[in-house]
Amino acid sequence: MAEAAANGDARRRGVPRPTNPMVTPLLTDLYQFTMAYAYWKAGKHLDRAVFDLYFRKNPFGGEFTIFGGLEECIRFIANFKFTEEEIKFLRSVMPTCEDGFFEYLSSIDCSDVEVYAIPEGYVVFPKVPLMRIEGPVAVIQLLETPFLSLVNYASLVTTNAARHRLVAGKSKNLLEFGLRRAQGPDGGISASRYSYMGGFDATSNVAAGRLFGIPIRGTHSHAFVSSFMGLDEITDKALTSSDGSSKCEDFVSLVQNWLIKIQDSSSLRGTFGETSQSELAAFTSYALAFPNSFLALVDTYDVMRSGVPNFCAVALALNDMGYKAVGIRLDSGDLAYLSVETRKFFHVIEKDFGVVGFGKMNITASNDLNEETIDALNKQGHEVDAFGIGTYLVTCYAQAALGCVFKLVEINKQPRIKLSEDVTKVSIPCKKKCYRLYGKEGYPLVDIMTGEDEPGPKIGERLLCRHPFIESKRAYVVPQHVEELLRCYWPGNSSTSRQELPSLHETRSRCIQHLERMRPDHMRRLNPTPYKVSVSAKLYDFIHFLWLNEAPVGELQ
Amino acid sequence: MAEAAANGDARRRGVPRPTNPMVTPLLTDLYQFTMAYAYWKAGKHLDRAVFDLYFRKNPFGGEFTIFGGLEECIRFIANFKFTEEEIKFLRSVMPTCEDGFFEYLSSIDCSDVEVYAIPEGYVVFPKVPLMRIEGPVAVIQLLETPFLSLVNYASLVTTNAARHRLVAGKSKNLLEFGLRRAQGPDGGISASRYSYMGGFDATSNVAAGRLFGIPIRGTHSHAFVSSFMGLDEITDKALTSSDGSSKCEDFVSLVQNWLIKIQDSSSLRGTFGETSQSELAAFTSYALAFPNSFLALVDTYDVMRSGVPNFCAVALALNDMGYKAVGIRLDSGDLAYLSVETRKFFHVIEKDFGVVGFGKMNITASNDLNEETIDALNKQGHEVDAFGIGTYLVTCYAQAALGCVFKLVEINKQPRIKLSEDVTKVSIPCKKKCYRLYGKEGYPLVDIMTGEDEPGPKIGERLLCRHPFIESKRAYVVPQHVEELLRCYWPGNSSTSRQELPSLHETRSRCIQHLERMRPDHMRRLNPTPYKVSVSAKLYDFIHFLWLNEAPVGELQ
Repeated sequence: MAEAAANGDARRRGVPRPTNPMVTPLLTDLYQFTMAYAYWKAGKHLDRAVFDLYFRKNPFGGEFTIFGGLEECIRFIANFKFTEEEIKFLRSVMPTCEDGFFEYLSSIDCSDVEVYAIPEGYVVFPKVPLMRIEGPVAVIQLLETPFLSLVNYASLVTTNAARHRLVAGKSKNLLEFGLRRAQGPDGGISASRYSYMGGFDATSNVAAGRLFGIPIRGTHSHAFVSSFMGLDEITDKALTSSDGSSKCEDFVSLVQNWLIKIQDSSSLRGTFGETSQSELAAFTSYALAFPNSFLALVDTYDVMRSGVPNFCAVALALNDMGYKAVGIRLDSGDLAYLSVETRKFFHVIEKDFGVVGFGKMNITASNDLNEETIDALNKQGHEVDAFGIGTYLVTCYAQAALGCVFKLVEINKQPRIKLSEDVTKVSIPCKKKCYRLYGKEGYPLVDIMTGEDEPGPKIGERLLCRHPFIESKRAYVVPQHVEELLRCYWPGNSSTSRQELPSLHETRSRCIQHLERMRPDHMRRLNPTPYKVSVSAKLYDFIHFLWLNEAPVGELQ
Repeated sequence: MAEAAANGDARRRGVPRPTNPMVTPLLTDLYQFTMAYAYWKAGKHLDRAVFDLYFRKNPFGGEFTIFGGLEECIRFIANFKFTEEEIKFLRSVMPTCEDGFFEYLSSIDCSDVEVYAIPEGYVVFPKVPLMRIEGPVAVIQLLETPFLSLVNYASLVTTNAARHRLVAGKSKNLLEFGLRRAQGPDGGISASRYSYMGGFDATSNVAAGRLFGIPIRGTHSHAFVSSFMGLDEITDKALTSSDGSSKCEDFVSLVQNWLIKIQDSSSLRGTFGETSQSELAAFTSYALAFPNSFLALVDTYDVMRSGVPNFCAVALALNDMGYKAVGIRLDSGDLAYLSVETRKFFHVIEKDFGVVGFGKMNITASNDLNEETIDALNKQGHEVDAFGIGTYLVTCYAQAALGCVFKLVEINKQPRIKLSEDVTKVSIPCKKKCYRLYGKEGYPLVDIMTGEDEPGPKIGERLLCRHPFIESKRAYVVPQHVEELLRCYWPGNSSTSRQELPSLHETRSRCIQHLERMRPDHMRRLNPTPYKVSVSAKLYDFIHFLWLNEAPVGELQ
């Protein structure tokens, strides 16, 4: 038992299991098993294959993507092993297959698989392999579906989050509020994790906060407000001051007095009448529960005629007791207009009642926000400090799939190509190396793929970069800095040393840093410039030799 | 220990845990906990609240939705209980909250919660509660986010699957191939389950097949084809005949001979030249592994000049040995044209070589299919027997979220309404009963909501059905059959008897049956007629009384 556990540890090399316990070796398409059997029957199952995992087009009409999902892929292969029950189930699904095959399946793990990948959180581009996976063909095929399932959505939502950050600007707080609208529970948990990686500041999702150490945020909903009928519901009205020095026995009256003062203030007189008592009771109760972090949702009845005055009354009462309220949340209506009006109201309070800093109170906006609406708010002018974004972020509404593929590029040292009448679908053959070349100004200029045995690009040496398919597109580059993109994250039986998996916080910092390092014209929302992806002259020639070799010659009739 | 387990069983009433182990009481928004604390501090946490879960608009431009996700909600509440670790984590997140609150949290389960719901798999409509949840307000709010997360995507993808079934027609086989493009692993598993519920026949997802007993399908990919270089790779060439009576020692030569015969056949001569040997080797290997279920992906090189002739050669060789090939899969190109041409080719083979039934060989199509492309294929004319649908089905690309909401409608027997300047967002107050009224021809005519204490609609009695918000929209109905929609799935401490949760297969049959029972004009793709959703005259009057009561009167300045 102890020995078995030790072997297991050796196999896993200390890598924990996938975050989602539903990620098992059965989480794959049946055809991976039928193919494995056919390989096994043909005695080909140990043939050494190389697959590339890549995508063909950047999402959301943009010209960049962020790579996410690598850590979960490594956790998956580190723990890849069929249980007896799983084998039993597979036997029932494939009843005509020979016993020897199931014995083979029982025996496999990923100890002779090698995974090279671009670090998670990097800015990545179409056609360049995010991952290069090598090993026995039957095993590698079993990894195809889980890898795609782990990378596709992770990369898509990280990219979506990064795009929201770019449009919102660095100074805004971005909160992910998507759990309830996500595509299933794991969709929600992954969304929280990868939105944080892509530059969000916090999530509302408690489970994700616990799993990944993401800051968690939240206050109250409309239901909380409508659950109160009036102030007489509040029985315990006492509040001790922030420094503990005094106690207000009737905080409710303090709030009511402040509301009257606001109503009577010369600058605000007539802007609102009777406010909702249900709302005032809810705010007061919430403040009594969280005097240090009072933030109120102000649009249950009417923002300017009820929500904001009620909030200010409670905030001023808190101020009397030495507490500083946090601010408000707007969840409906014209967010530009309401945030500007609310800000004015706050400034009037600051001025009329001499409460320093009241004008700077936080304004959070939510309600079906996305890139477009934030962009529109920016153009209109607004006073929002934080955006709470849900549905459009987590479902990637603007483009619900990335479309990563997993293609065979070499088997038994023989390069393989997948042809297609659609040139964008032709795969780039060969086991490759990939480099990012940087220019004088520190920006990445171009990614280049070469054959594995070619010498790498050298700093200061002129190099021809060719478009992989279009003959006329090529450019000379003199790199000032060369970065090899594919690092070894799972060495298998090779002696290559293994890159450690960084923490989510480290990956997030890297992602933010890499986004900042890009030339701005690649990143802009409108008509961004495509980043160049190229192959070496030698690889170009080889691709086209292989292509002509494999493609049947047409016959016009 | 045994007693604790027994208590646990009593609490759970034999309901298993949620399918996804990540669905725990922490899978919720933080504000549900901050609100729970504020309720607790105000002594309001045990106030008896009623919430409705409903959606506001049918998805995909249609006029119907299928309700999915109920079973998982019931599993969730049946097992709702915080662990010590979870409480510890919550303490760290809410450090200012009093100990008593965490003791309260530790003590709660859902034994005093009642859940009434429309049966899973029913056709449902906007504004009518899919679920009515009653219980202590603090507990019910904790359920909001997980319930929404479990229902939103489930209902969306079930509806999407049903729409694909409607456009494809009853006779076609529909296969869900979405795992690799789904929004995370659970997105894939949920997609498989709910696509099956919505009328799909099978999935490629092995884990979903195992969890839910869904039929699993799959054969091979392009990589399998390109992994072969030529026929000399096949070492074990023997195949025993189907009835075991004879053995072919060189099945490869048999295939090659058939290919020559096809090439030389007078009707096919000149339609193709040399076929891909890599592909022929792959097909032959696959047939040797699965002689009883040979289905080949024919578009790796060229469908008509390589894939289909190669397939036919292998299928004819199998036929010699008493095996019946299944068919082909097309994964690119003009599917209408290619399926028609392939069918012609199959018919020629049947005729020229006298193989009865060869013309009826199965043609499966995949490659970015969706409602629109299937509709276009139908209009063009095609010979496809089965559709494999992935990305567009599982991500619900055409509309990536349903937008269910969870609204307080009553607290302590007091009806509550959520107002909004957008009338479609005003909630329908009161604890309600919901009925579906059927007409003479057996079609459902209208859904009607009434107050809880109102007498229900009666067969043969004229009843006024009013639009909940638009005064002029109303109609008299004489129902021929009355169905109460909300059934008790979790009785809490009430004496109501509990509906059993049916199996997935039963829910699927119900769903198919209910879709067939709808009047066709509600279901058509183009300009469907909205199904009517109404309230009783009494409820109408009450809604509008409450609305006027709560809404502040504006002041024009």
